[in-house]
Amino acid sequence: MTKTKIECEDLLSEFGRGLKSNAIRKLTLLLGRREVISFAAGAPSPDTFPLEELAEIAARLIRDRGHAALQYGPTRGQSALVEAVAAKMQERGVAEASPANIVLTSGSQQGLDLLARILIDPGDVVFAELPSYIGGIIALQNSRAELVGVRQDDGGIIIGDLRDKIKTALSQGRRLKCVYTIPNFQNPSGVTLAAERRGEIVKLAEEFDLLIIEDDAYYDLYFSQSAAQRPPLAALGPERVVYLSTFSKTLAPGLRSGWLCAPAAISSRVELAKEGADLSSSVFDQAIVSEAVSSGLIERRLPALRDFYRSRCQAMLEALDGNAPADAHWTKPLGGFFILMEFDRDLDTGLLQRAIDHGVAYVPGEPFFVNGGGKNALRLAFSKEPEPNIRTGIKRLCEAIKAS
Amino acid sequence: MTKTKIECEDLLSEFGRGLKSNAIRKLTLLLGRREVISFAAGAPSPDTFPLEELAEIAARLIRDRGHAALQYGPTRGQSALVEAVAAKMQERGVAEASPANIVLTSGSQQGLDLLARILIDPGDVVFAELPSYIGGIIALQNSRAELVGVRQDDGGIIIGDLRDKIKTALSQGRRLKCVYTIPNFQNPSGVTLAAERRGEIVKLAEEFDLLIIEDDAYYDLYFSQSAAQRPPLAALGPERVVYLSTFSKTLAPGLRSGWLCAPAAISSRVELAKEGADLSSSVFDQAIVSEAVSSGLIERRLPALRDFYRSRCQAMLEALDGNAPADAHWTKPLGGFFILMEFDRDLDTGLLQRAIDHGVAYVPGEPFFVNGGGKNALRLAFSKEPEPNIRTGIKRLCEAIKAS
Repeated sequence: MTKTKIECEDLLSEFGRGLKSNAIRKLTLLLGRREVISFAAGAPSPDTFPLEELAEIAARLIRDRGHAALQYGPTRGQSALVEAVAAKMQERGVAEASPANIVLTSGSQQGLDLLARILIDPGDVVFAELPSYIGGIIALQNSRAELVGVRQDDGGIIIGDLRDKIKTALSQGRRLKCVYTIPNFQNPSGVTLAAERRGEIVKLAEEFDLLIIEDDAYYDLYFSQSAAQRPPLAALGPERVVYLSTFSKTLAPGLRSGWLCAPAAISSRVELAKEGADLSSSVFDQAIVSEAVSSGLIERRLPALRDFYRSRCQAMLEALDGNAPADAHWTKPLGGFFILMEFDRDLDTGLLQRAIDHGVAYVPGEPFFVNGGGKNALRLAFSKEPEPNIRTGIKRLCEAIKAS
Repeated sequence: MTKTKIECEDLLSEFGRGLKSNAIRKLTLLLGRREVISFAAGAPSPDTFPLEELAEIAARLIRDRGHAALQYGPTRGQSALVEAVAAKMQERGVAEASPANIVLTSGSQQGLDLLARILIDPGDVVFAELPSYIGGIIALQNSRAELVGVRQDDGGIIIGDLRDKIKTALSQGRRLKCVYTIPNFQNPSGVTLAAERRGEIVKLAEEFDLLIIEDDAYYDLYFSQSAAQRPPLAALGPERVVYLSTFSKTLAPGLRSGWLCAPAAISSRVELAKEGADLSSSVFDQAIVSEAVSSGLIERRLPALRDFYRSRCQAMLEALDGNAPADAHWTKPLGGFFILMEFDRDLDTGLLQRAIDHGVAYVPGEPFFVNGGGKNALRLAFSKEPEPNIRTGIKRLCEAIKAS
């Protein structure tokens, strides 16, 4: 066990140094090599990758159009895919979306980073959910935003708390810049923003002249039709919202293909920043994704993908019902990859090590909470482990918690 | 011709707006659709892409190892490729290079951008060659470096001028940060830094406590053995040099695969910045490149690649000898993709449009000169057009110049 212990300490120190997403991925890679069931990485299941189709597409693209697909390409992205994404944004309710609004990015993480770079001056206030996505927090902090946490309940951001936090920041004379929200099946909480609150957030943004960064990586991965029908904030206030999404969850994250849809004045600035950042995203990956979109491969697989993750979520919820200690409570996601488990007390700091010794891993809550909270919380990803492992893993986790 | 005229004006306005690399690529894409011979884009010839081998590798990787090759990966890069790159740096003379020094990047452009982000505080002075690479200039300016131009001759940076510029900047009380140099077959001038000056630059960096950013995209593409034997600055002063290179010229740029090799304290900070920037570069592209390296595909093709570009360079030099106006002079590259053509007078501003009307394109000199110069210069890339086109294109260009 010594080796595991040392590596676990290394990883916790990486969390501390700021390499948070990386630490989660390393934890998962490490653990993948032993008998540890991991609920740590928020990655899609590789069992969902359409390997045969992608192998065929990749080889055909190189043989038929390799001169273009392997060459440099435009910064904004390959035009066929830019147009397909604009059409997708129209389907999502942004009626006026056109190629002028779109920039293709290396995952939506790059969109967050480029936005933070062009929008944030040091000290600008950004309101973020408690908890929020680590990668978004990192990108915003790298541009020296001051993150102010806003409380959530089962319906997402509590509007009254957002209004209070806005007023407090104003009264302190701080510069307010934007609201960063993950409205659907949030990473890390699994919470979905209630339909009526979406309009209220857009109204608050108008009232206080804020932008909204809407990070919608899980849009397509709902578990029921009712969760599918909530409009993106970008559909409600397109002139105030920068919308980010990705093909990482519905196709494959290793292709690093995401996009943003923004008012044209913002998307032009993002394009300019992206030119300096990497000239363009992988042209070959874009060509593969473009073919996967135009051939209908992605769309066709969505119903099966939703079933796949719904079953895993269900298995985890049932296992929690059967094993969790009495003082635990947890979210009931309507889609996505994540459940947040919380306790009425802080968890002891040795829990992650003890859980790994019991053969299960998770991500501690702290890195997700911009207010320093989360010591009573942990994130469980149900996306990567098969159902029998989910049942065994939750049992092990609950034993480790009870052993404290 | 009206349509061409309008598009040409659009492109010149993009140069003005800052979208410089993008404007060059758009110019090339546009011109690719008509009978215009383009010496504009500094891209490799797609005729050099090993399509059949890459198609086979791509399909095999997805079928055999797609679960990993299409999944998220570590921020620093896939370990097999990181190790291969560390070994490559040892071959290039950086004896102590290890994986701790390496970060894989989305082309070396991303390396430039991440470095600028972590190293540069607004106002820091960076010394750059006159002329220099547009993408490097953009990345440094995005971090609000103050670029000070240093004159070059046929042996690259003039050491006396660098020393003078350093002293002037010091006497003005400015903060000096680094020297940005492209020592081999420079983009855009084609000039190669003389062997003895390499050690002198490292010594100056030590004397004045400067870092060196060594951008060595064309390292492998020398035209004669004598040009091959100049040591990277990183081999002479590894603790002061951040070295950048890429697989874009020797394999394919659409895979966006580059790397940097830096003192471990810097590479750790780059890794942290990269996590926020995109989590990692394309995992699939890295897997392809890794296979192309380990199978020997890249190494095996280098002699033929050198012959390929040497012939094109030779064709352009001969065409210039036969057609250029008497007041023109130009560089004689020892490798790479570029020739810089200069005149004793400023070129007239209508020349690019007139050249396009004559059926040939190039990039005007100005965007490459951080001191506002370059009005008497133009960059000619010999990499993309076949030899008969090079001969015809140079003839057309010289006619357009003489028509002024």
